[in-house]
Amino acid sequence: MEYTRDQLIGIVSGQMPAKRWKHVEGVMDTAVILAKRFGGDPEKADLAALLHDLAKFWPVDRQEAVIRDNGLNSELLEHDKQLLHAEVGAFISQRDYGIEDREVLDAIRYHTSGRVGMTNLDKIVCLADYMEPGREFPGVERIRELAEHNLEEALIAGFDSTISFLLEKRKAIFPLTVLARNDLIKATRAIL
Amino acid sequence: MEYTRDQLIGIVSGQMPAKRWKHVEGVMDTAVILAKRFGGDPEKADLAALLHDLAKFWPVDRQEAVIRDNGLNSELLEHDKQLLHAEVGAFISQRDYGIEDREVLDAIRYHTSGRVGMTNLDKIVCLADYMEPGREFPGVERIRELAEHNLEEALIAGFDSTISFLLEKRKAIFPLTVLARNDLIKATRAIL
Repeated sequence: MEYTRDQLIGIVSGQMPAKRWKHVEGVMDTAVILAKRFGGDPEKADLAALLHDLAKFWPVDRQEAVIRDNGLNSELLEHDKQLLHAEVGAFISQRDYGIEDREVLDAIRYHTSGRVGMTNLDKIVCLADYMEPGREFPGVERIRELAEHNLEEALIAGFDSTISFLLEKRKAIFPLTVLARNDLIKATRAIL
Repeated sequence: MEYTRDQLIGIVSGQMPAKRWKHVEGVMDTAVILAKRFGGDPEKADLAALLHDLAKFWPVDRQEAVIRDNGLNSELLEHDKQLLHAEVGAFISQRDYGIEDREVLDAIRYHTSGRVGMTNLDKIVCLADYMEPGREFPGVERIRELAEHNLEEALIAGFDSTISFLLEKRKAIFPLTVLARNDLIKATRAIL
């Protein structure tokens, strides 16, 4: 079955606390603004943002079961639990909510980790998640400033803030995030 | 031909400026101290430290040629040039200076990047390179303090300083260093 946008809003918001839904609304608004600013598709940005955290508040064992039972990326099971919901969200969006657009599904799948060769939509959703108005963390103002004119620089600053946070907290750094950051730096240098 | 330690000192010190040779002497002294402190082999630590930077001041194109012409790890060619000398140093130590001890060669090879599953000697040489008395950088005192009683914690702090430096300088982070750090953190947690 296909769902209307309003139905998806009902489905997603019903699976998380009100505070998290407010975050999702912030990401949707921000993703649309960024899509208009940086040549993206605002409708796709809105849809990917709406769905990006759908599994965020599922119990971890339910997220792990979805990954195990459906042959998804099992490497994630060995890393921080925060990474699971992105993979699960993409899978559920396709299987249960009829989303077939590969760009939208990838933007959901890689919104936390990033990846090498990020699409414009990947970057927009990932950056929106870092900088939506409700976010407060060291460096977020600089990310917002960079996002006024440069999508890639803002996203590099976002990944830098994640890596610094993980260093400080003595937590493992997901290798794909480092590869994504390196790839953005390389791409940005090639343009200069 | 086999070389004596004094001959190797002559060979290595002749290929670098006096200031860098002073650094190598510092790494040798420190590696021996750490080996005695943490159950390593002081002779192997001394030898690996003596040879670890032998190619450091070779022209980059000569280092790249050694890697290309001998089928060494070509992934390094796409990363920071600072990583080349470790791989080249291990290769030359074996081919030209008759070093056959796998542990010593690996400690030379991984002294800059680290790796997953570092041996005790890998850790000792890598840490000695971070903290020898001539080193001065933000955080080095903390590394020295940790090294008084914990090899792994000191090395994690060393890798953290490298990653922070690369973030700040907007340079690519070598993925293996992140994997090495993650692996040390995991191993340290398993002990707790």
